[in-house]
Amino acid sequence: MAKYWVVFLPFGVDKVFGEGINLLDAAKDLGVGIKSICGGKRSCGKCKVIIEEGKENLSPITEPEKRLLSSNELNRNYRLACASEIRRGNVSVMVPKESFVEEQLILKEAKAIVFKKNPAVAKFNIELPGPTLEDLTPDFERIKRFLKEKIGVNVKHVDLLVQRNLPEMVRENLPMRRKVNWNLNVTLYDEEEIIDVESDGDERVYGIAVDVGTTTMAVYLLNLLNGDVVTFDSLLNPQIKHGEDLMSRVIYCIENEHGLDDLQKSVIDAINESIEKICREVGISKRHIYEMVAVGNSGMHHFFLGIKPDYLGKAPYVPARRGSYLIKAREAGININPSGYVYWLPLNAGWVGADNSAVIISTEVLKEEEMTLAIDIGTNGEIFFGNSQKAMVCSAAAGPALEGAQIKFGMRAAEGAIDQVKIDEGNYECYYKTIKDEPAVGICGSGIVDAAAEMFRTGIVDKSGRFNTSLEEKMERIRRKIDFGGEYVLAWREETGIDSDILITQDDIREIQKAKAAIQAGARFLMGKMGAEKIDRIILAGAFGSYIDKVSALMIGLLPECPVEKIYMVGNAAGVGAQLALMSREKRAEAEKIPDLVEYMELAGSKEFNKEFFDALHFPHKNPDKYPIVKKIMEKR
Amino acid sequence: MAKYWVVFLPFGVDKVFGEGINLLDAAKDLGVGIKSICGGKRSCGKCKVIIEEGKENLSPITEPEKRLLSSNELNRNYRLACASEIRRGNVSVMVPKESFVEEQLILKEAKAIVFKKNPAVAKFNIELPGPTLEDLTPDFERIKRFLKEKIGVNVKHVDLLVQRNLPEMVRENLPMRRKVNWNLNVTLYDEEEIIDVESDGDERVYGIAVDVGTTTMAVYLLNLLNGDVVTFDSLLNPQIKHGEDLMSRVIYCIENEHGLDDLQKSVIDAINESIEKICREVGISKRHIYEMVAVGNSGMHHFFLGIKPDYLGKAPYVPARRGSYLIKAREAGININPSGYVYWLPLNAGWVGADNSAVIISTEVLKEEEMTLAIDIGTNGEIFFGNSQKAMVCSAAAGPALEGAQIKFGMRAAEGAIDQVKIDEGNYECYYKTIKDEPAVGICGSGIVDAAAEMFRTGIVDKSGRFNTSLEEKMERIRRKIDFGGEYVLAWREETGIDSDILITQDDIREIQKAKAAIQAGARFLMGKMGAEKIDRIILAGAFGSYIDKVSALMIGLLPECPVEKIYMVGNAAGVGAQLALMSREKRAEAEKIPDLVEYMELAGSKEFNKEFFDALHFPHKNPDKYPIVKKIMEKR
Repeated sequence: MAKYWVVFLPFGVDKVFGEGINLLDAAKDLGVGIKSICGGKRSCGKCKVIIEEGKENLSPITEPEKRLLSSNELNRNYRLACASEIRRGNVSVMVPKESFVEEQLILKEAKAIVFKKNPAVAKFNIELPGPTLEDLTPDFERIKRFLKEKIGVNVKHVDLLVQRNLPEMVRENLPMRRKVNWNLNVTLYDEEEIIDVESDGDERVYGIAVDVGTTTMAVYLLNLLNGDVVTFDSLLNPQIKHGEDLMSRVIYCIENEHGLDDLQKSVIDAINESIEKICREVGISKRHIYEMVAVGNSGMHHFFLGIKPDYLGKAPYVPARRGSYLIKAREAGININPSGYVYWLPLNAGWVGADNSAVIISTEVLKEEEMTLAIDIGTNGEIFFGNSQKAMVCSAAAGPALEGAQIKFGMRAAEGAIDQVKIDEGNYECYYKTIKDEPAVGICGSGIVDAAAEMFRTGIVDKSGRFNTSLEEKMERIRRKIDFGGEYVLAWREETGIDSDILITQDDIREIQKAKAAIQAGARFLMGKMGAEKIDRIILAGAFGSYIDKVSALMIGLLPECPVEKIYMVGNAAGVGAQLALMSREKRAEAEKIPDLVEYMELAGSKEFNKEFFDALHFPHKNPDKYPIVKKIMEKR
Repeated sequence: MAKYWVVFLPFGVDKVFGEGINLLDAAKDLGVGIKSICGGKRSCGKCKVIIEEGKENLSPITEPEKRLLSSNELNRNYRLACASEIRRGNVSVMVPKESFVEEQLILKEAKAIVFKKNPAVAKFNIELPGPTLEDLTPDFERIKRFLKEKIGVNVKHVDLLVQRNLPEMVRENLPMRRKVNWNLNVTLYDEEEIIDVESDGDERVYGIAVDVGTTTMAVYLLNLLNGDVVTFDSLLNPQIKHGEDLMSRVIYCIENEHGLDDLQKSVIDAINESIEKICREVGISKRHIYEMVAVGNSGMHHFFLGIKPDYLGKAPYVPARRGSYLIKAREAGININPSGYVYWLPLNAGWVGADNSAVIISTEVLKEEEMTLAIDIGTNGEIFFGNSQKAMVCSAAAGPALEGAQIKFGMRAAEGAIDQVKIDEGNYECYYKTIKDEPAVGICGSGIVDAAAEMFRTGIVDKSGRFNTSLEEKMERIRRKIDFGGEYVLAWREETGIDSDILITQDDIREIQKAKAAIQAGARFLMGKMGAEKIDRIILAGAFGSYIDKVSALMIGLLPECPVEKIYMVGNAAGVGAQLALMSREKRAEAEKIPDLVEYMELAGSKEFNKEFFDALHFPHKNPDKYPIVKKIMEKR
């Protein structure tokens, strides 16, 4: 089956889907909340979306749409999400404000926040007199003087590569080579360095925002004149061949002489290929891409910049730098305009990286009065807690269980992965959904959380996580295992795409407990340090946070208790943060203050954290009073 | 015959001499004025010098020296210059103050000027606590914080190459890799960027000063801790293979696709080889050379930096930039510490280059009340006139005649070149001296000036430069030539090393007139623009200016009239200026103000200059009253 990219704007979340899916289902899959009263029956007309690009790649406009959309809307490429199926190519979908569901508030905020469009790169068109015997000012000083006198900009430098060709650049389109005016486009960086001079009237100015993830990378091309995301690309991080998780890549660096070079080269090459592809696709020149803003965790940061990561992998896990870093694109090896720049947002500390800084500036948690818990769940959960007065951050080693690793039938979120689970509390029958509705081949993160929550809710496991093997007699899905406590059959061999039942085992439950306990305990540890009794809202950033069921997450105590309507899933907030930093020097300045405003708390060796961790191993917590809502549900049963 | 380098300090002038020359003759040859009453007969004891390096390369200490030098002096490596012959290697000679002849005053000033030793590069030894669980500050921020708190230096950046290896550098000599203090040598540039970090206690800090000449280049290694010139090297500019003069190299760039690359690569390679050689010789690592300061004319500047020189060679002769330029050594291709810098002093304008800026800061003409004319005579004479209140500069196209080109028997200052000429005013007999007293093979610059002056003084040519061919009947050295006016035989075929008489022709006289008129007219043009009637002193910089006879120069009107004792020859003032800029950020700041303080006057197309030029074609000038001293000499005759 053919597969195509779908991106939902203004959130910037995106994914590859198989042919035939409709946009409402695609949005749901991505955690993008689009209003829909009729549930996709093409009758309520609430799920209006605007097709920004690729309208020809959708199924034809249906009769209900002709009825429910105004002709003005139809002319402006409005469709109903539920009636638009992906048929033959990539689609870029703008969700208008009126179609947002409430819970998308934060994401809306993330894109709708008021920021001054003020990128570091700016291009000026100037016309100035060329040299004559009466005015022999040299080329650079001539341009500098004009910019000072006419535009009020105080240029200090000119990049060496520009300086080298300056005499030719300023004169190349002149009919005679002197005694005429120069008509130039001069590109400045940070209002003080000339990074390009053109005499062909080209005013295009682009930038790249990159979210370098451990597994996948998102590359966005922005038009710096208006802030539009022109296009984007998403690709696997090729470092995966040197280790799936960060620590194994660090070890690869330590153990191989050219290890760091390999990791650096592979990620730089991949980004360059993506930029190449984007330029071809959009029909622009790399010369007109003047800056790249990058975010990623501390490991990605070190690998990208070629900084030795050895000590990042050894206690006390100290990075080689945390401040933001601005280097010439050519020094970074990034193939945009070589006189342009690569800017990395600051790390917070240790394993709390630049991606976390990006999440903070895109969610603006440091500007709010509400006490916000913001979590990016991964192998390391980066946990932020605080508000405009005070904030802390820590990194909880959840391990890879929630990503499917160390779980007997765990897998990534791919076709055939069980991603939703319901268990009947009467007969313990299992109802599940797989990605793309393919025969089940394993269980992915959101399915694992669901399964654990349902097994706890229905009493298959107790609050300590132990299997209630007495149920074995009632139901063949529950099996006692002498050495392993017990197991629960999610899918029978006959239904699966593999030659085996798909199970959740006692060991799986233990792994899930450890993972969720780390996250909850990290959050509670910060609450304790801040002296906070409650959380006003929770923001879940990143891919994993966009898929899990909020109630299930509360049920098992992955998150501290919080009203479900105050839990927001914001998708790729790190990528949005990178875009904001690219478009706004003020947002960049905000990011640069983060290491001073947000206190990093080291969990390693902390007795308080250890106590929180052991209490949090229970479903949802040793003290049920900490989860009144869950307690009520359980009591009802 | 073996050849060795001799350098005279504190002037920094140097040359290769053949084995056997004594230091007094070598000093004379270089224009270094050392006192000597007995004329080299080892009897007056005035020509005391101190052998800084290479005393084993000189002839043994003589009896007169044992008598004339105190035992204390002998212990401190004093010798008499007249009694010390170069025998087997290079020698570095310090001329003590008491041995200076009066006219060396300016040179002495150039080295003795009070400047704050304040190089841009500084190394700090620091000991600071490494990271612990209680203090997780990352590596760069840890060093930055310490420098701020303990030394008061506000570091802003760290070079990428240093940042990359920082984790390893700070920990490499530690017995355990954490929980101990770090003992580091941190090298800062301009007090704001970390350009090296070492953990081996190495406090060496060196810099390179380079005078990139069209023909030869001088490379000095300085110890930045104390300003000492540790060693130096002098080499041919390999660009010569692409053209002897600047304009032919510019044309080579225009006509050949890789022309600029060739010129750039050849000069960079030559400097790198010289640095390599110096490091081997002195036994230091290139890592410890952190900066190179370069000076040279505008062409050398453009070629070195790889800047297109095409328009420097076309009216109105505008350079691509004039401001000083600071770039990373690795970007310049210079093999010193790659995180270090190359700094070019500013150009003035057009063909008045960075070498002129260096002359200005080393002679301090902008700090004096005296109206000084400072000239560096070459194919283009760079002429400065002014004082602390007002100053102007211009470039007079003298052409290569004074360097021996376009003169029938002209040659470079090499063995066998006639460098001094005297003509008997009674019988027109010629007395001449050749370099190394070899049979004459041609005539070099100082000989050309002498010959023209003597021919004018004795009436062989008149003030208009015309041969008095009526003298032919009196004297066979003077010959009438039907087509060419006349010629004067300096050396008979039997005496020469070539199969020909060596002559000065009417055409030669015309070439000399044009060359000297350009210089004089340039100087008078500036005097006119400044409204100055007289000149308080004249400084002659550069090689040519160090060899010519001052009286001869006045006689032909190469210089405007000025008391002979107020004409100073300062040798390689450009090289000294580069050294000063390397050692002192204040001197560098002085240089950076030059383009604003010194007004550039373009001579091309100026009617005033043309008038001055035609008047100056006469010996010494159309109006003899402009040269009262010369007038008196001529009237005596």
